[in-house]
Amino acid sequence: MNKRLIFYILGWVLVIEGLSMQLSTIVGLIYREQSYKYFLFIGLALALIGGLTVIKKPQNPTMHIKDGFASTALSWIVLSLAGALPFYFSKSIPSFIDAFFETVSGFTTTGSTILVDIEALDKCMLFWRSFSHFLGGMGVVVFLLAIIPKLGGNNSINLMKAESTGPSVGKSMPKLRTYAALLYSLYIGLTTIEFVLLLLGGMNVFDALTTAFSTAGTGGFSTYNDSMGHFDSYYLQTVVAVFMMLFGINFYIYILILTRKFKQILKSEELFIYLGIVIFATTTIAINLLSYYDSFREALHQSFFYVTSVLSSTGYAITDTNPWPAYSVSLILILTCIGACAGSTGGGFKVSRIIILFKEIKKEFMLIVHPRNVYTVKTDGKKVTHEVARSVSVYLTIYVFIIVITTILISFNGFDFTTNFTSVLATINNTGPGFSMVGSAGNYSEFSAFSKIIFCFNMFAGRLELYPFLLVFIPQAWKKN
Amino acid sequence: MNKRLIFYILGWVLVIEGLSMQLSTIVGLIYREQSYKYFLFIGLALALIGGLTVIKKPQNPTMHIKDGFASTALSWIVLSLAGALPFYFSKSIPSFIDAFFETVSGFTTTGSTILVDIEALDKCMLFWRSFSHFLGGMGVVVFLLAIIPKLGGNNSINLMKAESTGPSVGKSMPKLRTYAALLYSLYIGLTTIEFVLLLLGGMNVFDALTTAFSTAGTGGFSTYNDSMGHFDSYYLQTVVAVFMMLFGINFYIYILILTRKFKQILKSEELFIYLGIVIFATTTIAINLLSYYDSFREALHQSFFYVTSVLSSTGYAITDTNPWPAYSVSLILILTCIGACAGSTGGGFKVSRIIILFKEIKKEFMLIVHPRNVYTVKTDGKKVTHEVARSVSVYLTIYVFIIVITTILISFNGFDFTTNFTSVLATINNTGPGFSMVGSAGNYSEFSAFSKIIFCFNMFAGRLELYPFLLVFIPQAWKKN
Repeated sequence: MNKRLIFYILGWVLVIEGLSMQLSTIVGLIYREQSYKYFLFIGLALALIGGLTVIKKPQNPTMHIKDGFASTALSWIVLSLAGALPFYFSKSIPSFIDAFFETVSGFTTTGSTILVDIEALDKCMLFWRSFSHFLGGMGVVVFLLAIIPKLGGNNSINLMKAESTGPSVGKSMPKLRTYAALLYSLYIGLTTIEFVLLLLGGMNVFDALTTAFSTAGTGGFSTYNDSMGHFDSYYLQTVVAVFMMLFGINFYIYILILTRKFKQILKSEELFIYLGIVIFATTTIAINLLSYYDSFREALHQSFFYVTSVLSSTGYAITDTNPWPAYSVSLILILTCIGACAGSTGGGFKVSRIIILFKEIKKEFMLIVHPRNVYTVKTDGKKVTHEVARSVSVYLTIYVFIIVITTILISFNGFDFTTNFTSVLATINNTGPGFSMVGSAGNYSEFSAFSKIIFCFNMFAGRLELYPFLLVFIPQAWKKN
Repeated sequence: MNKRLIFYILGWVLVIEGLSMQLSTIVGLIYREQSYKYFLFIGLALALIGGLTVIKKPQNPTMHIKDGFASTALSWIVLSLAGALPFYFSKSIPSFIDAFFETVSGFTTTGSTILVDIEALDKCMLFWRSFSHFLGGMGVVVFLLAIIPKLGGNNSINLMKAESTGPSVGKSMPKLRTYAALLYSLYIGLTTIEFVLLLLGGMNVFDALTTAFSTAGTGGFSTYNDSMGHFDSYYLQTVVAVFMMLFGINFYIYILILTRKFKQILKSEELFIYLGIVIFATTTIAINLLSYYDSFREALHQSFFYVTSVLSSTGYAITDTNPWPAYSVSLILILTCIGACAGSTGGGFKVSRIIILFKEIKKEFMLIVHPRNVYTVKTDGKKVTHEVARSVSVYLTIYVFIIVITTILISFNGFDFTTNFTSVLATINNTGPGFSMVGSAGNYSEFSAFSKIIFCFNMFAGRLELYPFLLVFIPQAWKKN
């Protein structure tokens, strides 16, 4: 490992985080909250420590893939440890484990909360919670790519690989910095549009801003105890639902729209399958909910909101879904696992991976039928290499193993099976709510400290798409070559 | 497809089934039950139809892998359809779907029942239920291999591949018939030993025989409503527990023991991991159960029985496990999925597949750390080929997809999530009991006919290890070359 280079990147992460905290300082000052000082001082301290680390550039700027993975994973851990400090020192969240859980949930855009009374927190604290979704959504390291001086060679690609969602980054190296900048512009642009639409619907600036941040990162933290249910407005809830869906789409699609490459959009299997899932799930759940709501329109509204919320891994709620019928519950859990598109801010297993797996199954059967033929798996007209196919298969294996093992570990709390299993699904897929105790109206406060650490592990593993995060725990990765 | 050859094999299956039914005729005659005649006449009719089909040997005896898979899958379907007739015509099980479910559950050695009052059935019916486990355990087609005249060439290997459990059959072709005969001798030998030990413990001949059949096939059908709980004897329950564990071990290990190749046994990673799982699960569940039972001895007894029952995919019960604590419940569900060793009569995902998957994960991380190195995955000192590794990965994918999709389909009944999810796990892994409504003291009677067909699909898919069974549903497989 190139430890010096990793420290250098971690330094930049602290600088960005410290400066970001000053937005919360401003919010605190506006609302005349005493707690603003935690953001001011902790933020300045972080920026200072970070600043000292980045004064000297590393002599050896070579970044192997393992360095890229490790620096990304450690960035997220450092980001969450430091981000928890204002919650902890201000006693907004008196337990450090709880503060850490909340911050991890924020940066990984999970949106699971340990807070029983969210509205009791100061505005500047709530702002930091929502802003962590915004920072985490597109990825802090991708942000670094766009702003820090070039580190040289193929560093960027290895950072990008580690943090981007989905099976592959299809960009060429030289364009990577421009691409990262473009992604962030799009991200900020879409967020701004949502912010304005929410303002037009009558939300105040603070609510519109925090809601837009939470939607953009597909996070799901709300500033209200009953989440988006607080806003009893079809318009506002629908705006959020539509934007949850939009933020779950590969950002590359938006670039294609902006550059008017419509033909290429038509080739995107993932986009159409994603939209197909939204339509199928919304319709069938609405039908399943007919006897639960007064009108089909209300059932459809409830269904569309929750489908986009869960599929995009946001996790906003407008009602308690625990009483929903079995079909809706099962399908929602499956949408939780499917997740959004690659290259979006969403979590989950990713539609594109599922497409590759389906095609691998088909290939396997074709080989049984015609053993001597050669079959090539393609997506969007491009060949899926043997390496990508294997990596996706192993991804599924690790994913299943983590779900299995962490369900066992969570079960030590003695809660019911639905709580244990769905809380694991909700964290590894970065969705937020599950069912039973962790349902859309519930929270994670009752779990033991040990369980909360397990959940943090799952949230990190899910957001960083397993490999980069797990690599940190492999001793061989730290050995000198 | 070589349809003529497939018909020929199906004919032999009917002959064997028809003759097997005469064992139930004898049981009926001994107990002076009128229902013996259903076995007598249906059995003779089946043997006759089968006999007419096999008079003429197929002219083209070439069996491609797809023919081997299809004939095996169709054999099991025909076997179950025909095997359900005595239940149905005697009105022991008045609904044909129910009778079919019960028979599929028997032959696939699942042991899920739709019977609410098992003890109300005639002895000859109960005998047929248990005997279906015995027939299904080692595989009907493997049995055919040992007795029918040689079909020529590499037919046997393709049949064996389709029906044997686990990722690969490591035998050379010429020895295959001898090997099949040896397997059946071992199978009958072990069953006989258990039968004698049960007799020595005070069971009557009928109970000892049916219990031994159910254990040998790792099926789990009991002739009593409260399963093995009916026999309030540590000795009898322990004998069954030990034999459940033994029948979950690769039969090749027993051949190695008989031929005194002890060094090779020591190389078997699967055996030691299987035994390690038994020890780990038994101990930790016993500790978890301490507050539920009077003594550690009782907790250990309960734990050992249920661990071997579920891991071997038998599904016998001695108590209602629904009230058990969360850790025990979660671990039992995971044992349900892990299943037994390859080459045993047990179901589940198989320990050897899990070993391969773990090694593939390790390889993937080693490639991230040292991208230019070449890594070879080995089990038991032998190289795992790229084809086997891919096939195991795709196996996991199909397995997960089937669990996901069938959980959705089962949820239309409107039962709770634990019932839906664990009934799917219990059927695809051929275990039998799950939790909640399908717990060890429950049954499958309340499900809709549609759900029962889905469960049959899962039981077949699980027992035939996905590929052979699913191939039948692929149109391309039936096209002429």
